[in-house]
Amino acid sequence: MARRIGILGSGMVGSAIGAKLVQFGHEVKMGSRTAGNEKAAGWAKSQGAKASHGTFEDAAKFGEIIFVCTKGDVTLDALKLVKPESLKGKTVIDVSNPLDFSKGMPPTLVPRFANTNSLGEEVQKILPGANVVKSLNIVNCEVMVNPKKSGGEPTMFVAGNSAPAKDEVKGILKQFGWSDIIDLGDITGARGMEMILPIWLRTWGATQNGYFGFKIVR
Amino acid sequence: MARRIGILGSGMVGSAIGAKLVQFGHEVKMGSRTAGNEKAAGWAKSQGAKASHGTFEDAAKFGEIIFVCTKGDVTLDALKLVKPESLKGKTVIDVSNPLDFSKGMPPTLVPRFANTNSLGEEVQKILPGANVVKSLNIVNCEVMVNPKKSGGEPTMFVAGNSAPAKDEVKGILKQFGWSDIIDLGDITGARGMEMILPIWLRTWGATQNGYFGFKIVR
Repeated sequence: MARRIGILGSGMVGSAIGAKLVQFGHEVKMGSRTAGNEKAAGWAKSQGAKASHGTFEDAAKFGEIIFVCTKGDVTLDALKLVKPESLKGKTVIDVSNPLDFSKGMPPTLVPRFANTNSLGEEVQKILPGANVVKSLNIVNCEVMVNPKKSGGEPTMFVAGNSAPAKDEVKGILKQFGWSDIIDLGDITGARGMEMILPIWLRTWGATQNGYFGFKIVR
Repeated sequence: MARRIGILGSGMVGSAIGAKLVQFGHEVKMGSRTAGNEKAAGWAKSQGAKASHGTFEDAAKFGEIIFVCTKGDVTLDALKLVKPESLKGKTVIDVSNPLDFSKGMPPTLVPRFANTNSLGEEVQKILPGANVVKSLNIVNCEVMVNPKKSGGEPTMFVAGNSAPAKDEVKGILKQFGWSDIIDLGDITGARGMEMILPIWLRTWGATQNGYFGFKIVR
């Protein structure tokens, strides 16, 4: 079923997810800080009639489902530019990672969002009326929308407080090609999903290959 | 080649690793806080002539290779009971996890060992003359010594500053049955390996099955 989907963020992640959703017949509006963002405009133009662009608020209001694809260090600021009522009752998929590049490479996690907290939980806190689901943040954006790019069938996780919202996300994940999905429970499961980033980064460095995924062998 | 191996810790992890090493013909001494530890004595008795027990210092001195299998919150205290010269130049495999049970279940990581630091790095710091390698901490102890118990062929990681020490560890991992080993570089790679614990714990909770491993699909 074709849906209206809002994408917050006009970087590689938002562009890849948006393009895949358009391919499946969804209507997609990409939002960014300003209505005239050139990257968002260029993306929308390249994607044809089902794609459009606007502000974060425009995209949030437009979508029945919202993907948060901002860089993790600006995710909360971006969401503050959206009216809470524009996201009320909607499924909000947080794909962002709270990476801290201030201490050099590879990045660590922003300490206040790590271990005993997570960015996913903070997103749910500032959007109490929305149903936040953490997912997709553990692979690169090409693998997100085409898991077979990893060369196999890796596992994807979901975490969130709303079972119907997670079912909606699982449906999209299956469209993307994810065949093995594990539900980690409530939004505090976002901690583990974000804390997997350090080993993702080191594995990328060790293998010189970013096209991989994590399979839970069981 | 049969080696002399010291195991620090008489819990499930030390017992499982020690038993497997005895099976492969290695001589194993299990060390604990006191020489008369009943668990260590019972373990040694059950394992026959190639197994023995003693203090942490006895096991450290005995082994050409040392496994640190203590609970993470006492690892550094246990190592302070060992004379630095007893571990000098030796390969020390740190299997322990800095889990913090003080905030309830599931545990978080001890904050001072997480994100911008790791227990593996702290072990290397207090043992500057030893070659510390982090490994095996990301699966349960039965999977550690028999990865096929997961039902497949998961990936194992090693991280440490000494290439020869990592080669020695890879040799033991192969004996245990690990066929896919990724070298994450220096001991700071222990961060990612320890930060994988939260998703390990949540996956265990979600699947009600502790016999799993992480495969890097690539």
